[in-house]
This record gives sequence, C-alpha cells and structure tokens, in this order.
Amino acid sequence: MGDVAQRLAGIVGEQHLLTGDRISDDYAGDESLVGPPAKPAYVVRPATADEVAAVLTTAAEHGVPVTARGAGTGLSAAARPRPDGLLVSFERMNAILEIDTTNHVAVVQPGVTLSELDEKTAEKGLGYTVYPGELSASVGGNVGTNAGGMRAVKYGVTRHNVLGLQAVLPTGEIIRTGGKIVKTSSGYDLTQLIIGSEGTLALATEVTVRLHPRLGHGATVLAPFSDFDQVMAAVPEIVSSGLAPHILEYIDAFTMAAITYTAQLSLGVPDDVREASQAYLVVGLENRDADRLDGDVETLGELLSGLGASDVYVLDGTAARKLIEAREKAFWTAKAAGADDVIDVVVPRAAMPEFLTRAREIAAKSESGVAGCGHAGDGNVHLGIFQKDPDKRANLLHDIFAVGMELGGAISGEHGIGQVKKEHFLELEDPNKIALMRRLKQAFDPAGILNPGVLFD
Amino acid sequence: MGDVAQRLAGIVGEQHLLTGDRISDDYAGDESLVGPPAKPAYVVRPATADEVAAVLTTAAEHGVPVTARGAGTGLSAAARPRPDGLLVSFERMNAILEIDTTNHVAVVQPGVTLSELDEKTAEKGLGYTVYPGELSASVGGNVGTNAGGMRAVKYGVTRHNVLGLQAVLPTGEIIRTGGKIVKTSSGYDLTQLIIGSEGTLALATEVTVRLHPRLGHGATVLAPFSDFDQVMAAVPEIVSSGLAPHILEYIDAFTMAAITYTAQLSLGVPDDVREASQAYLVVGLENRDADRLDGDVETLGELLSGLGASDVYVLDGTAARKLIEAREKAFWTAKAAGADDVIDVVVPRAAMPEFLTRAREIAAKSESGVAGCGHAGDGNVHLGIFQKDPDKRANLLHDIFAVGMELGGAISGEHGIGQVKKEHFLELEDPNKIALMRRLKQAFDPAGILNPGVLFD
Repeated sequence: MGDVAQRLAGIVGEQHLLTGDRISDDYAGDESLVGPPAKPAYVVRPATADEVAAVLTTAAEHGVPVTARGAGTGLSAAARPRPDGLLVSFERMNAILEIDTTNHVAVVQPGVTLSELDEKTAEKGLGYTVYPGELSASVGGNVGTNAGGMRAVKYGVTRHNVLGLQAVLPTGEIIRTGGKIVKTSSGYDLTQLIIGSEGTLALATEVTVRLHPRLGHGATVLAPFSDFDQVMAAVPEIVSSGLAPHILEYIDAFTMAAITYTAQLSLGVPDDVREASQAYLVVGLENRDADRLDGDVETLGELLSGLGASDVYVLDGTAARKLIEAREKAFWTAKAAGADDVIDVVVPRAAMPEFLTRAREIAAKSESGVAGCGHAGDGNVHLGIFQKDPDKRANLLHDIFAVGMELGGAISGEHGIGQVKKEHFLELEDPNKIALMRRLKQAFDPAGILNPGVLFD
Repeated sequence: MGDVAQRLAGIVGEQHLLTGDRISDDYAGDESLVGPPAKPAYVVRPATADEVAAVLTTAAEHGVPVTARGAGTGLSAAARPRPDGLLVSFERMNAILEIDTTNHVAVVQPGVTLSELDEKTAEKGLGYTVYPGELSASVGGNVGTNAGGMRAVKYGVTRHNVLGLQAVLPTGEIIRTGGKIVKTSSGYDLTQLIIGSEGTLALATEVTVRLHPRLGHGATVLAPFSDFDQVMAAVPEIVSSGLAPHILEYIDAFTMAAITYTAQLSLGVPDDVREASQAYLVVGLENRDADRLDGDVETLGELLSGLGASDVYVLDGTAARKLIEAREKAFWTAKAAGADDVIDVVVPRAAMPEFLTRAREIAAKSESGVAGCGHAGDGNVHLGIFQKDPDKRANLLHDIFAVGMELGGAISGEHGIGQVKKEHFLELEDPNKIALMRRLKQAFDPAGILNPGVLFD
C-alpha cells in the first residue's frame, strides 16, 4: 500500500478506502453521455467532516486531485474523477440530522437522497421543494450543481432553498456559513458562492435546507398547441396571471410521443388533436383549499383557451402523476432514443421562441437533430442532441450556446458546466469574468486540488 | 488642482468633480448614529460605467480609497467616505432603462430610488418587492447592503430579487453577471457574491431586478398580546398556516407607543387592552381576489385569537397605511427618542424569545435600554440601544451580538456590518471565514482601494 493510501486508510478506516479492483464501475462517472468514464486511484467513504478535512489535507500535501460524489446523477461529468485522483463519496454521510418544524428547515448530511428527505419531511407536512427529476440525487449534489427542476418556477432553485452549510475548505478548515436564518448581511455570502461551484471550491458536509408547507390539493392541466410559438407566448401570460403555478413545462411533439410511448401512457388526447399538435404545456397548480384550486383550474383553462390551446385536459391523479414522472425521465428517454448529448440552455423567458427557432436552424444546417422539453416558466430549455460526429457536435453545441448567450442567457440553467461543457464555457464567457473566477478559485484552493478539469482547465 | 483631481475632472467633467468647500455635508456619511461624519477629498458624479471604470483605474494608480454612495440611507456607515478618499456618487446614474413586462424584470441604474421604481412599475401592474422602509433609498444601495424590509417574509431580500448586474471591478474591467434569467448554473455566482459586499468588491453600474405582479387586494391586521413570549410563539404558526403573509412584524409596547405618538395615530385599541399589552403583531395579507382575501383575514383572526392575542383588529385603509409608515419610520422615532445606536440581529425565528430575553437581561445589567420591533417572520430583531457611554455600549453590543450568533444567527440581517459593527464582526466571526473573505477581497481588489475600513480593517 502506497504512502497516500496508508494515510487515507488511517483516516477513514481500511474498509472505507477502496483502490484497484475494489473500485466498482459506479464510481467512474455520473450520467453524462459524453466522454468515457474514469476510475480514480482512490475512493474514500468518510463518516465525518473531520475525516473529510483530514482527507483534503492529505490530498493537498501529496498533490492528489479530489472529486466529490453524491449519488452520481449529474449530467456534466462534474463527479467524474481523475484517473490519478481521489474520489470522496458521501454515501455514508447520509443522515437527516434534524427536521425543525418551527424554523421550517432540515439539517442533513450531503449524501441524503431527495427521496428520503421527501418522505421524512412529508410526515411533518413539509417539503424540500427542489425536484430535479431524479429523486435518487443527493442534497450534496444539488448544492454542487445548483440543481433546479420543475418546481423552480414557484419555489426557486437550490440556491433559494439552501440557507446554510458546513463545508470543508481544500486548505483543511471546517467552516459554517449561514444557518437556520432566511437572511443575513454580515460579510460575503459564502453559502451562495459554494452553491453551484461544482466541487471546485469546498466540500459541503452538512446542509441546512428550507422547508415549505405542503399544500393539500393539486391539479395538473395539459394543453396541446398546434403552433409552437403560441406555446411560448402563453408562458409569460400564465406567469403574470397570479395563478402561481408550481409546474410550467413545455414538451415538444416529438418528446411527448417518446415519453408517453416509453411510459405506456395514454392521456386521452384524441388522435386528430395529437397529430396537429406541435407542442404541449403542462401546468401544475396547488392550493391549501380544494374550492380555490377548482376555481384556479377553471381560470387557467379559460386563459389557455384564449392563448390558443387546441384543448385543455385536467388530468386525473394517476395520469397526472405518470405524465410528470415521464417528463422527469425525459433524459432517460432521450438517452434510449440515441441522443448523443443533452443540454439545458437558459434564456430570458420571452426569448425562448427565438432561441428554439435558431437552435433548430443551426441543427438542420449540420444535419443534426434537436428535440426536447423544458422548464418554460424559467426559460430553461432542455434539448436532446442527435449528432454522432464529435466534431460536428462540438460545433453545433458551440453555436447553440452562443445563441443562448447572445439572447441574454447562459450555457446551463441547472446541469452545470462540469467537464463536458468547459471548452464552450471558456470560449464563450467574458475572459475578464473567467479570470476573476480563477482568482476566486485560487482564494479557496491555492493548491488546486478540488476538481481540476471542471469549469477550468 | 492636484494631479488626481485633474485626472478625475477629465473623466467626469469639471462640474461633476467636487472638492473642498464644494462638497456638501450630505456626502460625509449615511444615517448611521455612530461616529462622526467624514468629508472625502473628492466627490465624483459619473454618468456611465465607462466613467466609473476610468475613475477606479485612476484611484488604483494613485492609491486613493473609494467609497460608493447611493442615496446615503444606510445605517452602518458603509457609505461614509475616508477623509483622504474619493466618493463615487451615483446620483446622475438614476435612469430606469427598461421595464420588461414579458420577462418581469426592470433594468435600472444604481442611483434610481425605490420610490421612483415603485411608481413606474406600478403603472404596469408590477413591483420590485424590496421595501427596506426608506423609499428614498437607491437600488444600488440595496445591492450593497442586501437590503431587506417588511415584505421579505414573502418575497425575500435583495439577493432574491436581483437577477443580474453590470459591475465595474476595482481593476477597471466592466463585467456583466446573470441577466433576465431566474436561474443559471454556469460558473461561480458573481451576482450573489457582489450583493451584500458593501462596496468592497465591485461597483454596480446597472441592476436587473425581478418584478412581481401586484395583487389587487390587501388587508392589515393588528393583534395585541399581553404576553411577549406568546407573540413570538405565534409567528411560526402563522408562517406554517399557508396564509403566506407579506408582512409579519412584531412591535414592542414601548416602540408602539413611540411610533403611534410620533405619527399621531389612533388604532382604536381600547385603553385597558393597550395598557395590558406587551407587544403587537402586525400581519399583512394580500390576494388577487377580494373574497379570498376576506376568507384569509377571517382564518387569520381565528388563528391569532387561538394563539393568545387579546383582540384582533382589521385596520381600515388609512390606519393601515399610517401604521406601516410609522413602523417604517421606527428608526427615526428611535433616533428622536435619543437612541445611541440601532441594530438588527437576525436569529432563527424560533430563537427570538430567548434572544430578546437575554438581550434585555444583558441591557439591564449594564443599565442600558433596549426596545424595538422587527421582521418577526424572518427572525430579524431591530433594537434601539440606549446607552450614552461608548465603552459600555461597545460591551453591550458585543454581548448581544454574541448571543445572536450563539443562537445560530448573525450580527446583521439587513443593515450590514459597514464601519460601525466591524470590530464586533472581526472579533466574533470564525477567523477561518474572515481569512477566506480577505482572500476573496484580494481576488477582486488587489490594490485594496474599495471601501477600506468597511468589513475589514
């Protein structure tokens, strides 16, 4: 056993240090479709923040690159380790430490899965409202990528729902930021800086998340549109209406066909309407009062009809649940359909039609396919990319990302840059901002051990 | 005219460079009650981001400290200039550049006042929901301190309502962060890092703020309590109720007497109830539907009675408006009453009773007075401090801040650290975090020209 391995075994215990053949394929990457997985030289499974701190100190001393891993459900290879590196897996730090029903927060370890947190908070009538579509994801992973999901249109993304962190700096110190408080103006907001930093600044070892009361009544409304632009034009009207939907998704006809076929789901849309539809809106409403919900559904129906929907379907509970699940699994459907990449550009809500038109034109020119769905209320467009040739695909992505940024958006709304979009990020982003971000990285991580190759080269 | 003055005049024009007697007293500080004002050596009133960039480059070359000023309504002396320094006043950069009703954002220059933005967005049925109680405050000042206010319990503080910035770095580069997008996961969140940095990292020259639809119907409910702890215990119950108040304030009996006397405001509370009251809750509800609002007010009334309120008053429009205004002017009332300082510790909502009990005990021991009110829904306690002796007052504040932090809170919820709480911040905050913040400061501002003496020594 080498020197590094010996030190690591001394910290986490021999059974929680994995090397060589003891490292399973799972640890070699996340769900990104791009590039080969890579097994690391070491995997550690620490149990405490102190162990994480000792691991990072050891890594810094020996110049070993460190990648953090939650559940490995990321889509940008931010949790794909370096072959010579050390993977810190948070699978053993998976306790819900507290559900505080007075302050409406939960304090959890980073390895807790969203499904477990969802179940445990539901027992108290509360919920953590970040639903990135994959409930096996971990809270620590949410923090790393600033995860979003369908409910963000009402409840915001991870950064709006994480109030505090315990984090280990790559220099070995353990700090606490924020807390069970919804506001603070007492120095720089380190919580917000660490969120979305994709494991390059610090490793979260405890997360204080905000909980919201669960509202007892919900409805899901499906509206097919024969004109794609009308779907997009309807979105800001629904946002303005004051109905405050917690789900506001668009699904293009191709993607709807694929996800309903995969889920063997019949939505009761007649054949002629379906064949004439270019896209669909899915709108979720919720209320603490059943009568008010009914009133809102009616108002929404009238609004949608006035905005050009071919029809409006209020889905029954089972169909609604299945459709939302199928939408959440759209990534898997795209993967099964042979997509070569999946991206999630975010643009100003009103710029979605132009963005999608131009993205399709760019794709057509390079004989590529793009199809998708997205968090329409947030302007966050998820596209499956169908182009086998890596060079053509790289050019295609570059051009699509450039259009998104030209329209005032960003490369990723919630998936992150990771390793796989880094090249485009570094090329398209303002060099002054990249330089500043590098200086911030240096301020946290002078030895450069945390996730080298993610965000920056 | 000295060399620096000449360069500055060349950038902003001679009429917009003030020196010597041309610098009015207004520029010497903000509304902080502590410490003497200080006139700077230079005041510039730039008109563009390019001018700001040139000013900062000049200041860096000559080692001149730079303080930014919006409307000067801050309470922590973060806009109090250095006597040898340069004050950048944003009074001429006060345009509303765009109110975008599709994306629900406004793009404004930093010198725009909240009252102007409020008026102009109201015309479109929208609003910027940060109401720090002083409508003459500027949006740029909001960004500097991460301002909060009464509506934060529903709409969040500045950092939840600012989506993007144009900012000038102290190294002279002009960058754009975020945009008309509600989410992004594309590199470090520079927007969030600059917000609340009190002019020490970068100067905002354009701000993209989120707008919310104005709901047409509102009600204000006043509930006196004879037991202070019952007020505090009621707060989490109201938050849990799902009624989603946009105002949830407590006002102690002393402060209520002072602000109603100052405002010559009669609330219709009978003498016997008033005399038996230790504190009041003020709850604001709003709805897009008048009937629903009425239903909510009724539900709230029952809830408050069950939680121990002596009575429940639904205020008429005039009384409601006057009470909210009087509450917003509580700072001025405290000042007029001879308060020697005003602080705004934030603690977990559930910790407010313990915090207030201990703060009062600490004050009693040092023969000081504390009285106040606060954003109860946010755990943000505003206290007027009555103690003339500076040393005793410093000890008192130290002890009160220490209790707030011990309970999991922070020194300031929305006023900031500025110059006047720096000593306590540096003493009470984790030295590892201070060291990290200093490195971040260095990453932005290697020459150390932006607001030296604020946050750090």
